[in-house]
Amino acid sequence: MRILITNDDGIMSEGIATLAREISKIAEVHVVAPDVERSATGHAITIRNPLWAKEVKFGNEFFGYAVNGTPADCVKLGVQAILKDKKVDLVLSGINKGANLGTDLMYSGTVSGALEGALMEVPSIAISSCSNSNPNFSSAAKVVIELIEKLDLNEFPKFSALNVNVPAVTYDELKGYKLTRQSKRRFQDFFEARKDPFGNTYYWMLGEIIEDDPGEDADYYAVRSNYVSVTPITIFYNDLKFMEKLKNLFLFNDN
Amino acid sequence: MRILITNDDGIMSEGIATLAREISKIAEVHVVAPDVERSATGHAITIRNPLWAKEVKFGNEFFGYAVNGTPADCVKLGVQAILKDKKVDLVLSGINKGANLGTDLMYSGTVSGALEGALMEVPSIAISSCSNSNPNFSSAAKVVIELIEKLDLNEFPKFSALNVNVPAVTYDELKGYKLTRQSKRRFQDFFEARKDPFGNTYYWMLGEIIEDDPGEDADYYAVRSNYVSVTPITIFYNDLKFMEKLKNLFLFNDN
Repeated sequence: MRILITNDDGIMSEGIATLAREISKIAEVHVVAPDVERSATGHAITIRNPLWAKEVKFGNEFFGYAVNGTPADCVKLGVQAILKDKKVDLVLSGINKGANLGTDLMYSGTVSGALEGALMEVPSIAISSCSNSNPNFSSAAKVVIELIEKLDLNEFPKFSALNVNVPAVTYDELKGYKLTRQSKRRFQDFFEARKDPFGNTYYWMLGEIIEDDPGEDADYYAVRSNYVSVTPITIFYNDLKFMEKLKNLFLFNDN
Repeated sequence: MRILITNDDGIMSEGIATLAREISKIAEVHVVAPDVERSATGHAITIRNPLWAKEVKFGNEFFGYAVNGTPADCVKLGVQAILKDKKVDLVLSGINKGANLGTDLMYSGTVSGALEGALMEVPSIAISSCSNSNPNFSSAAKVVIELIEKLDLNEFPKFSALNVNVPAVTYDELKGYKLTRQSKRRFQDFFEARKDPFGNTYYWMLGEIIEDDPGEDADYYAVRSNYVSVTPITIFYNDLKFMEKLKNLFLFNDN
């Protein structure tokens, strides 16, 4: 099995090092990841500049390629150039330091790495350890290996991926797996205005989490209860309910 | 009616100038847009740097605020800081130079501007004129005004938006409106490897469009037939079919 690993915390981060080390025990691993942190880059890609892929060694040992781009760039470059003509069986994106729950998915570079794999019709999994200050990469890596063993990768639908969030506890403290939906957990943003030394105003974006969407099947609710949250996601944005609502609008009468 | 306008081509682009001019005839317009082009930034936001909002004048006339961020940043800053305590009735993102169809939506800054509005529970519309080389902003602006007049903005579901693509022809040449779904029109990427003057390899990303998803309801198919394509979209990525498929997996038996 050939696995492409990327992330959005950058190739020097602990999460990707742990993941690559553990996964290399069960598969052929290729790391292609951003040269620096690219958190909150969403599904950005690089179209106005060329991409570079620099070999990164840890000591004397080759670790992977550092790319001056986003997670989506890395997956494209990995599949279409670095591993060209080789079949990639799985894309893993992570292990992210911090949760990717609710509307985080819109902004998450980690999730976009997996969705880019899905777009290229490769089974893909985004994986996050749900603490910014005290992540547990070791338990998250064990979860990934368990998922690879128990899921049939051939059963992944085209253009779909999994978004996996692992509570930042030891493996033994995990209660099991929950199949979840992306909830509407979101941030209420506000801006702190400051003055520069010359009297001009600038803004820092801040936010408070709103968790008003509880339920056994909500992604954040599973994590809070120490379950691994597994959310099936798609690259498509179609809103079928809204479509039904609009169908009777006379604007579309000639449809 | 108070309308916030953003885009991803930058505040100096012709598309946003045309849109702001035409919309100001029917509503109170506030322009908050990226200072430079931010195409293909997806739903990136700026979290490691502060944001600046500079007043931009065209001649002696105030036009709007130029922000050193992405379309999503602009919508957040517009709603939460610049227009704080004022109700925004509609977010318009565009008029983009070039189509946003199929999997373009993943990468599109224009669409992310509208989705950010949707996330903040403001009715939002992304609008594109479907030609990079020869867009028709005038016909696209007329279409937006028609949509505002004919849609009931109060009927927009929370967290949903519309992605509107207008064929780059005159208004009279448009055949009408089609309610469409985001198709799987996508790019087959490949990379052109080049050498720098020092012998190092770098890559340019290129791609060819694959249009293998025809049908009256496919977004690109409507545009190709000179219809305005109106696609209802959501901020949620949930893949309900994939979820059904996974439900029987013993991993989730304790759900």
